[in-house]
Amino acid sequence: MLIGKVVGTVVSTRKEDRLEGLRFMVIREVGPEGKLTGKGVVAADAVGAGVGELVLYATGSAARQTVFTKDRPVDAVIMAIVDEVAVDGTKTYVKFVDD
Amino acid sequence: MLIGKVVGTVVSTRKEDRLEGLRFMVIREVGPEGKLTGKGVVAADAVGAGVGELVLYATGSAARQTVFTKDRPVDAVIMAIVDEVAVDGTKTYVKFVDD
Amino acid sequence: MLIGKVVGTVVSTRKEDRLEGLRFMVIREVGPEGKLTGKGVVAADAVGAGVGELVLYATGSAARQTVFTKDRPVDAVIMAIVDEVAVDGTKTYVKFVDD
Amino acid sequence: MLIGKVVGTVVSTRKEDRLEGLRFMVIREVGPEGKLTGKGVVAADAVGAGVGELVLYATGSAARQTVFTKDRPVDAVIMAIVDEVAVDGTKTYVKFVDD
Amino acid sequence: MLIGKVVGTVVSTRKEDRLEGLRFMVIREVGPEGKLTGKGVVAADAVGAGVGELVLYATGSAARQTVFTKDRPVDAVIMAIVDEVAVDGTKTYVKFVDD
Repeated sequence: MLIGKVVGTVVSTRKEDRLEGLRFMVIREVGPEGKLTGKGVVAADAVGAGVGELVLYATGSAARQTVFTKDRPVDAVIMAIVDEVAVDGTKTYVKFVDD
Repeated sequence: MLIGKVVGTVVSTRKEDRLEGLRFMVIREVGPEGKLTGKGVVAADAVGAGVGELVLYATGSAARQTVFTKDRPVDAVIMAIVDEVAVDGTKTYVKFVDD
Repeated sequence: MLIGKVVGTVVSTRKEDRLEGLRFMVIREVGPEGKLTGKGVVAADAVGAGVGELVLYATGSAARQTVFTKDRPVDAVIMAIVDEVAVDGTKTYVKFVDD
Repeated sequence: MLIGKVVGTVVSTRKEDRLEGLRFMVIREVGPEGKLTGKGVVAADAVGAGVGELVLYATGSAARQTVFTKDRPVDAVIMAIVDEVAVDGTKTYVKFVDD
Repeated sequence: MLIGKVVGTVVSTRKEDRLEGLRFMVIREVGPEGKLTGKGVVAADAVGAGVGELVLYATGSAARQTVFTKDRPVDAVIMAIVDEVAVDGTKTYVKFVDD
């Protein structure tokens, strides 16, 4: 999996039938130290992620192993919202939670 | 998935039997901000995409999860026509529609 | 899929039993404009391709979706001989056919 | 497979249901000569790996072939702890074991 | 598939149960012209390859299509020993065989 930041959305009306109801998010990869790296990819959303959130996403056939993406032609899925990343004993990311 | 622009076509008469009837399109990857990036790839078309259109395409085993590509030896498929891309709150692409 | 030019062959006698009878071709990727790009890969041949021909090849699990490669440990297959490539309205490749 | 060093962890509470109970580790690829290379990836842990250990990890559909990851949306798994690496007749890594 | 040279071995005692009995070899990719290219990867051995030999290896789900690797969490397998490579009409590699 890779850590990514959700930075946008893609809207499509004409598409393969099995894609109906899926949300497509634009993700930018984020290195474990929290820096934006790499180019953007588009992933289906299986956890209700919002723009600005840090997420884990899986690619390849793993992307079809969620309730929302089973048997659908998607090759990337957001499967978790990241709460915390720790590298070399240091917390490099902690999700800010409103009370 | 990646966002791509359909820039061309590939014609083949001698091919694996199961490929009969599929259209092969040349795609250039387009970053979320709308810039052409990367080299060209060839994808099967599952949605009736035309040259010049912005599309979403999936690679790997996901490419066989459409009605048109099931059980066929293809590793990339156009599975959606893009209407709109938004990144960081800005629309970076809006499909022009003739009335 | 990618467009490639068949540039050579690989011969192997000691190999996994299920590979018996398959031909292995060395392919160099060719961009849609016809330039050789990238390094060489080895693909199983499912269409009787010859050295010098332009072909389409698929990688990953798609490589096992032909009659010749089903259930065999191959990750790349030549599944079509290219007749013609058109990019941006220009034919960038047309196969020369002897009569 | 690739050789990697476990350098951190990722915590997530909101995630796909099937991920419950899995540990996610941040891994940095290590070349066979023992140098850290490449950027970090996140892998599910199938062997009880700890931060600091050298491991083997597999990506793609192989990541779902362990007892812990079967049918789960993960694309990378730690499937072995490395004891020893030898390259060109030289041991480039030997795990230190406390008695 | 890619052509590689076996340059080393990886030993692991603590690993996923299904990996028992598999040998893990360090491979360096070799271009069709015989030059070492790329970094090292680790592949399971399905043909009894030895250090120093030139081999073909397959990655992804193809790596589980041999008798030795079926249903095991491996993403790369040595599935053939290379006898000969020919590129552009020239033999770039011929295996030396002792009598």
